[in-house]
Amino acid sequence: MITRDLEELTAAASDAGADPGLGRPELRASLLSGIAAAMRERGEEIVAVARRESHLAEARIRGELERTARQLEMFAGIATDGDFHDAVIDLPDPDAKPIPRPDLRRARLPRGPVAVFGAGNFPLAFGVAGGDTASALATGSPVISKSHSGHTGTDELVATLIDEVIADVGLPTGTHSLLHTGHDGAGELVRAPEVTAVAFTGSTAAGLTLAGHAADRDAPIPVFAEMGSSNPAVVTPGAAAERPEEVASLLAGGIINSAGQLCTKPGLVLVPAGPAGSAFADALAAQVAAADAGPLLSAGISDRYDSSVEEMDAISELTPLSGEDRDRPDGDATPHLWSTDVASASSIDRIREEVFGPAAVLIRYEDATELLSFLGGTEGQLSASIFSEESEAELRQGLVDRLTPICGRIVFDAPTTGVAVCMAQQHGGPYPATLDDSYTSVGGRATDRFVRPVAFQDCPDRFLPAALRDENPLGIWRLVDGRRTRDPITRG
Amino acid sequence: MITRDLEELTAAASDAGADPGLGRPELRASLLSGIAAAMRERGEEIVAVARRESHLAEARIRGELERTARQLEMFAGIATDGDFHDAVIDLPDPDAKPIPRPDLRRARLPRGPVAVFGAGNFPLAFGVAGGDTASALATGSPVISKSHSGHTGTDELVATLIDEVIADVGLPTGTHSLLHTGHDGAGELVRAPEVTAVAFTGSTAAGLTLAGHAADRDAPIPVFAEMGSSNPAVVTPGAAAERPEEVASLLAGGIINSAGQLCTKPGLVLVPAGPAGSAFADALAAQVAAADAGPLLSAGISDRYDSSVEEMDAISELTPLSGEDRDRPDGDATPHLWSTDVASASSIDRIREEVFGPAAVLIRYEDATELLSFLGGTEGQLSASIFSEESEAELRQGLVDRLTPICGRIVFDAPTTGVAVCMAQQHGGPYPATLDDSYTSVGGRATDRFVRPVAFQDCPDRFLPAALRDENPLGIWRLVDGRRTRDPITRG
Repeated sequence: MITRDLEELTAAASDAGADPGLGRPELRASLLSGIAAAMRERGEEIVAVARRESHLAEARIRGELERTARQLEMFAGIATDGDFHDAVIDLPDPDAKPIPRPDLRRARLPRGPVAVFGAGNFPLAFGVAGGDTASALATGSPVISKSHSGHTGTDELVATLIDEVIADVGLPTGTHSLLHTGHDGAGELVRAPEVTAVAFTGSTAAGLTLAGHAADRDAPIPVFAEMGSSNPAVVTPGAAAERPEEVASLLAGGIINSAGQLCTKPGLVLVPAGPAGSAFADALAAQVAAADAGPLLSAGISDRYDSSVEEMDAISELTPLSGEDRDRPDGDATPHLWSTDVASASSIDRIREEVFGPAAVLIRYEDATELLSFLGGTEGQLSASIFSEESEAELRQGLVDRLTPICGRIVFDAPTTGVAVCMAQQHGGPYPATLDDSYTSVGGRATDRFVRPVAFQDCPDRFLPAALRDENPLGIWRLVDGRRTRDPITRG
Repeated sequence: MITRDLEELTAAASDAGADPGLGRPELRASLLSGIAAAMRERGEEIVAVARRESHLAEARIRGELERTARQLEMFAGIATDGDFHDAVIDLPDPDAKPIPRPDLRRARLPRGPVAVFGAGNFPLAFGVAGGDTASALATGSPVISKSHSGHTGTDELVATLIDEVIADVGLPTGTHSLLHTGHDGAGELVRAPEVTAVAFTGSTAAGLTLAGHAADRDAPIPVFAEMGSSNPAVVTPGAAAERPEEVASLLAGGIINSAGQLCTKPGLVLVPAGPAGSAFADALAAQVAAADAGPLLSAGISDRYDSSVEEMDAISELTPLSGEDRDRPDGDATPHLWSTDVASASSIDRIREEVFGPAAVLIRYEDATELLSFLGGTEGQLSASIFSEESEAELRQGLVDRLTPICGRIVFDAPTTGVAVCMAQQHGGPYPATLDDSYTSVGGRATDRFVRPVAFQDCPDRFLPAALRDENPLGIWRLVDGRRTRDPITRG
């Protein structure tokens, strides 16, 4: 449902969560694949509205629509395979020491209504029917989406489609709702007693504000906030010497694509000192200067980008490598690159903050020791890239060892942008990249956020959740007395 | 190592975490089973010291020693089965839409040094070699145990055994350390940059203090705090009528065992109004009055118990059912029961706080509606019990539906005490029972707290963590292109 009335909406979401319908995997799968089909069917209309609201390029929005539909279909499969339940059954053991063991069964069950705060930069894939909504619905958790001021029309159109599919499938109205509200309403939503978890993608400031609301509750709830990062890209001496143009082209793409408005945009590029590094830096600057970044999402984001550029330009340790160099189409953002060295970079706090837009800082390092030491002191990141040569085994190992503790994803020979939606994806890293680095907001394991384990001891079969019943009515994989099986249980 | 020097200790723990030794499952398994063997071998000495420090009964401490040893052995198995890695591999798919998919591999890897704050009421099972330490070491995370003021001697003895086993197995000294310190040192430990997670069992106040220290860090870390609960026990009209003595005996045991100093002690007992309920209440009061509770853990806990009893006695809506009724052995705690009704209970905040010791409150309910409504408004709990009859199917279903959202574990026909250590156990529930209800601190899944997912994209095989390498050198179960397998990967 689409509404401005918070109480009506949370009550409906709570009812939907308690309804047996959302407990049926096949209905959840029908819902998710139905939304995918509806989005494809109304694709032209959705693309038109999303383009008008976001100023993103047509190819990008079309690709995003397809990604969103496939993501919904992936979660339809996850709704039925039931892996997220992590169902574990230990049958009674009267001979267990020091005391006999009862029948114990544990499954992760849906938390209940989830508040989803989508992102401005992905009106579809991180929007009303995006990964947060899809993964919550896959588990059986109802969703309340807060409409995003940057794409209200897209949100409303998609929410209307979802409502239609919910009705078709026969699920309760409160399975999904769209809330039109501002900042105050967002706080009220997070503090609503029926809401059990929050999923958010956006700025650090907004993420921390929501976390504050959640902490103010009598019973705090988890806030899964993905707040962006600088995504360092390391160019090794080998890569700079052997294939400067190729690496520069890959990285320029990462910096410029979607006008740099991606949470995985490479914002810091580590480049060796010396002539090969300088040649690489020139190549990157030339490619960035030659690229069309396109317009930014909104006038507000454009203003913030301009102020960020002014702040960076004012820092004496940063040398501009690329900037106002040629006429660009009206309204297009100007890409910016600055350069500095590790010694200076370590003392400039500003460069650790994300510049949202087509901009990056090159940091020149003297040698492997300086590079690894700098990375060791870097704050938590969603992702990082390594551009290197096979001959650099020791450096590669050193980089993996340094990056693993601070990153959610380590990428070889590609920019960090382009987050594949699959089971093995991890989109989340140590603070400040996310508030809780145990989770991902992209890929199959995104469901982990919306379930909570509950154990049942000596519980009669008929009162157990379906995931734990003897006959295994969901047909899911379970760990029974330490053995992985889909077999039913026959009690002796 | 055993020390008072925090910096020495955190540096050693950090080194141990980076050492390849802890990355080898068979060494971790040898460590854990070695500690179990050493504890059994020195069992008499450990039992003597732990009894002297805790005043717990000999049988209880002997049982706890065996439980602790078996728990270590269970985690030795978990160290090698590698399930906690949740290894997922998606092989490249050049035909994926909207963009080709790279090689993506995701595994949960050890966070790094973990600070463990054990509990006063379980000097062994939640002590220096208890479940938190065992589950952290199983993943390869080094442990820094803070010595507990209630059982410093036990801690020191066990830590010495651990040091010996670490040396025997050939792991780094910093794999486990014992820190002797007070409250200030505890805060410094949580704020130490090398510490990546905190595991705590104890009071709400102490848990929240540690969480405050963690939030004060530049980069916050997770605090897995288990802070106790009231563990409501529901006696249905059927159970009260059909088998009052049996249920009273089970519940009296739960209230009295270990002098009521268990985080799963049933602190609230829901009993029907009317004659059958009254007869049950009388039976329970008689059994509690007749039982010997034994002495409390310490003079401090005894003082706090006495003050709690005074506070409860002063509440006019609470009728004492059991209390100072007979002479007890010197130093033994006097069990206490009070009775009230749902209407009064809802307005008395004090009864929602745990009374640590052999005491409980009976709450008389008029009918199923009043009972379910009361439970629906109850705060988060570790566990809850249902004593009922087969004929009460509708009420049983209603109880399961109401208790599931607020509990970590639902127990049929037994008190909530007696937490079996097995894969399906869940010891953790919604706030305020724990700070993060996604996790358990008892049972095989306790490892989940100390690992964090990292994805590797197009990473050359030799730089991948062992869990993700083609040949599957750990021999663990993995999800490869959606299929569960232990087979190695042969790249085309």
